[in-house]
Amino acid sequence: MIFSKEFTSAILIIGNEILSGRTVDKNTSFIAKWLGDLGISVEEVKIIPDKEDVIIASLNELRKKYQYVFTTGGIGPTHDDITSESVAKTFGKKYEYNKEAYAILEKYYANSEFNEGRKKMAKMPEGATLIYNVQGSAPAFFLENVFVLPGIPSYVELMLPQLKEVLIGGKKIISVSCDAKVRESSIAVELSIIQDKYPDIDIGSYPYSKEGGFGTILVMRSVDEDRANKCKKEIETMLSKFVQK
Amino acid sequence: MIFSKEFTSAILIIGNEILSGRTVDKNTSFIAKWLGDLGISVEEVKIIPDKEDVIIASLNELRKKYQYVFTTGGIGPTHDDITSESVAKTFGKKYEYNKEAYAILEKYYANSEFNEGRKKMAKMPEGATLIYNVQGSAPAFFLENVFVLPGIPSYVELMLPQLKEVLIGGKKIISVSCDAKVRESSIAVELSIIQDKYPDIDIGSYPYSKEGGFGTILVMRSVDEDRANKCKKEIETMLSKFVQK
Repeated sequence: MIFSKEFTSAILIIGNEILSGRTVDKNTSFIAKWLGDLGISVEEVKIIPDKEDVIIASLNELRKKYQYVFTTGGIGPTHDDITSESVAKTFGKKYEYNKEAYAILEKYYANSEFNEGRKKMAKMPEGATLIYNVQGSAPAFFLENVFVLPGIPSYVELMLPQLKEVLIGGKKIISVSCDAKVRESSIAVELSIIQDKYPDIDIGSYPYSKEGGFGTILVMRSVDEDRANKCKKEIETMLSKFVQK
Repeated sequence: MIFSKEFTSAILIIGNEILSGRTVDKNTSFIAKWLGDLGISVEEVKIIPDKEDVIIASLNELRKKYQYVFTTGGIGPTHDDITSESVAKTFGKKYEYNKEAYAILEKYYANSEFNEGRKKMAKMPEGATLIYNVQGSAPAFFLENVFVLPGIPSYVELMLPQLKEVLIGGKKIISVSCDAKVRESSIAVELSIIQDKYPDIDIGSYPYSKEGGFGTILVMRSVDEDRANKCKKEIETMLSKFVQK
């Protein structure tokens, strides 16, 4: 691992719709990039169904293993939204109306019916801190090191920036890349030699095919921008000796 | 769980590029839908980095817990492709050239250089069974209940159909859906009553917003098509009483 263990996280995606293949998860990519900018690496992502015992077991595993855990999904108004109650059980906290969340929702639904489903979104573990939805609707929350976010990507994108002051990150993870216009199998050996010279740089090799031709995107990730760029230069020098084979 | 425990699986996505957020994982959705058609449910997805100890620990956990495990990523020619060797270590098998895979690759690269990187793609755990790439390039493989697939989605789509005769599934998981043109918070209570009446049907509720309006897609999943349709009818009757609030 090239990054300090201290600034680690896991993402727990909760939702049958992802597991069944109906929905492609887009939250992981957004959250991981956003955390990377804060110097927090994502070490593991788990996608699980809306099942209480699985949610509790997963949370207990991940919250001990990593500095932060981010969950998405399951905090809406319907019967299959069981994340908040499961988080309460995980921490052995009461699952009750959060007064501030209740007031927000009561106001939001002032001109329509504030029914049971809508009230349910104000129920959270005792002691939860709200993460606001700037559009005025249901807030998310965090408790200790577990951040409970909605499943809808646009809401996640609205809410995450509020956590910037709460989270403690390390050095920003820099990512530089270049397009090797050759097959990765042509340069595998040479790339491996460079990786050995730069054990502090995480070099990724991602093949692509475009209009019948093959190429490879090389990505150098590090907390040290100078080193990443030095490594990139060395890779470019190596690449200049290759033509598509 | 509404499906037999017998026909379960997990997907293990191996790759730093997914964890860093650089790449959105599309394999989970494709594999899960394909398995659903065979009557095999995906119970868990784990996304992990290209780290040998993490790969081995994850494989050992998942292969004991589920009937099948599908991995994607890390079987290419470069230094960061360590999945095949990690699978060999997981099973305590030799990591060696697979003769058939070697012959395939030798032929595929007949008109260019059959270098170390390319030869590496023929190295597999002893006793592996090949999964062919119909385009003639590097095959994937399986060993016992672990199916080791490439990371590139188009290759996964080419290879999976070959496993149809190998995998043992249950009844096909049927999914029917309807578009409730109301907010899910409007119908949460009524939906919950119907879910209680149909404990054998997995009713999912997925809110959306479109052109300023809100709606909800309701998905009914079951191995019993008649029951799913009966449930759908009841939901539609319930919905007919609602207008957008």
